[in-house]
Amino acid sequence: MEKILVENELQQAKLLAAINDDHDGVIVELSEHMHTEDFASMLKASIVQWRKQGKRGVWIKVPIELVNLVEVAVKEGFWYHHAEPKYLMLIYWIPEGTHTLPANASHRVSIAAFVMNEKREVLVVQEKSGIFRGKGVWKFPTGSVDEGEDICVAAVREVKEETDIETKFVEVLAFRQSHRAFFGKSDLSFICLLQPLSFEVEKQESEIEAAQWMPLDEYVAQPYFQKSDLSKYMLDICLAKVDKKYSGCYPVPVTSNISDESGLLYVNNRYLRKTARPGLHVSV
Amino acid sequence: MEKILVENELQQAKLLAAINDDHDGVIVELSEHMHTEDFASMLKASIVQWRKQGKRGVWIKVPIELVNLVEVAVKEGFWYHHAEPKYLMLIYWIPEGTHTLPANASHRVSIAAFVMNEKREVLVVQEKSGIFRGKGVWKFPTGSVDEGEDICVAAVREVKEETDIETKFVEVLAFRQSHRAFFGKSDLSFICLLQPLSFEVEKQESEIEAAQWMPLDEYVAQPYFQKSDLSKYMLDICLAKVDKKYSGCYPVPVTSNISDESGLLYVNNRYLRKTARPGLHVSV
Repeated sequence: MEKILVENELQQAKLLAAINDDHDGVIVELSEHMHTEDFASMLKASIVQWRKQGKRGVWIKVPIELVNLVEVAVKEGFWYHHAEPKYLMLIYWIPEGTHTLPANASHRVSIAAFVMNEKREVLVVQEKSGIFRGKGVWKFPTGSVDEGEDICVAAVREVKEETDIETKFVEVLAFRQSHRAFFGKSDLSFICLLQPLSFEVEKQESEIEAAQWMPLDEYVAQPYFQKSDLSKYMLDICLAKVDKKYSGCYPVPVTSNISDESGLLYVNNRYLRKTARPGLHVSV
Repeated sequence: MEKILVENELQQAKLLAAINDDHDGVIVELSEHMHTEDFASMLKASIVQWRKQGKRGVWIKVPIELVNLVEVAVKEGFWYHHAEPKYLMLIYWIPEGTHTLPANASHRVSIAAFVMNEKREVLVVQEKSGIFRGKGVWKFPTGSVDEGEDICVAAVREVKEETDIETKFVEVLAFRQSHRAFFGKSDLSFICLLQPLSFEVEKQESEIEAAQWMPLDEYVAQPYFQKSDLSKYMLDICLAKVDKKYSGCYPVPVTSNISDESGLLYVNNRYLRKTARPGLHVSV
């Protein structure tokens, strides 16, 4: 009898609006201001309901304007999944045992651009901040690949932003995975070969101290370069490519008809040239 | 006179303990419980101090136990940078103008494993959840690359977890970048060739419905496969590799002596075999 009464009370409590996901879970997107007490009772009642329905993972997206509701959810047993500037995503796992919720984004992705002109000068920059600040080190242009941005597009964009040089994407020559101390995340850096289409360098004011075309000898003679096995090895590969002794990866648009995903598959360029396939014309 | 008084008062307010970062910013790691009012006045006073010192970005790491302090920081103008299960990172930009703080991790990284035995059977699984659940689709083992985990290590681990097959990493054959709707993040998937070292399949209970070695003909005959240009193209590349007509990327440990970073550089394997370099012996 008591149990029924409690259930009736919970049924009368307002429930949070939720949509189902593909993994027996529910997703709640909060959008309206409410009192913490009201949110607490709605959340409790909703969890009872979801448990009855056999739901497993619960996702609650809280816009930063509703930051007052975060503490309530944490007190109910929710924890953080990820955050972006304007929202925090909280999660909860209803069943007994370990959760199988997907992890947060784990990697930052960046590019390093190797651009060489016909005089075999390389395009290099000095950065205004970071570990090389004020050290006079000339390095390849580098930058972050944004969410939703293709690697080949990011490489062309970063070179343009930092040096004003227009380029055409040629290949990913190599990529490097490292595990730096940026809050425990890992990094993937794609070393890209780009072909220059313009030649007048103009540096970006905000982030770049200086930019220029530099004779290869001068670049190599830098003490920084001489101490860096990574830089030497990268340059070996870049020069092997320029001298046609290396083949990197080129992006091919390929669609998975099942999941409606589109994306670029980066494939050994030598193989691509040998196996021209209908429908796989690339424009980047 | 009034200004001096206010400054004196602020100097008397307790300041938050902070360490400097490499970009003229400060990092605060909260660890002790405090009243929201006390935190608010310490935060205000600290910002005044940091502004005087010419500081730019302010990072505050708030453990989930101190969730009550999050709202205070947001009211002071902080916003979210990222969150992990046990903490939330808030940021603030002191100067006028647009901030230059680094972005949050932008990509999830996964592997797909192509494993073929000497009978040209491929190792395939059916998954218990996700878009293929209950559809009888046989697919290559796939899985997430964890933070701090090498791609080549993740590939071997996932195959072992899902099928109990021991393997040796051979190459990354290709990689695919896509921009799915997982909270706006992007995905990078590395298609890896692995050589089987054991042959007795035992499926993982929690995530895998079934696992087996499957004759190539049967794998290809699946309606799902026939509809997927991506799957067909991936298989073409895998078979080209098996038949020695393709060269993927192999990891080489390379250290940057400058930034003390270590990591693996994935380089065209054909080039690597031609240019054996001292000190670049690989063990994965």
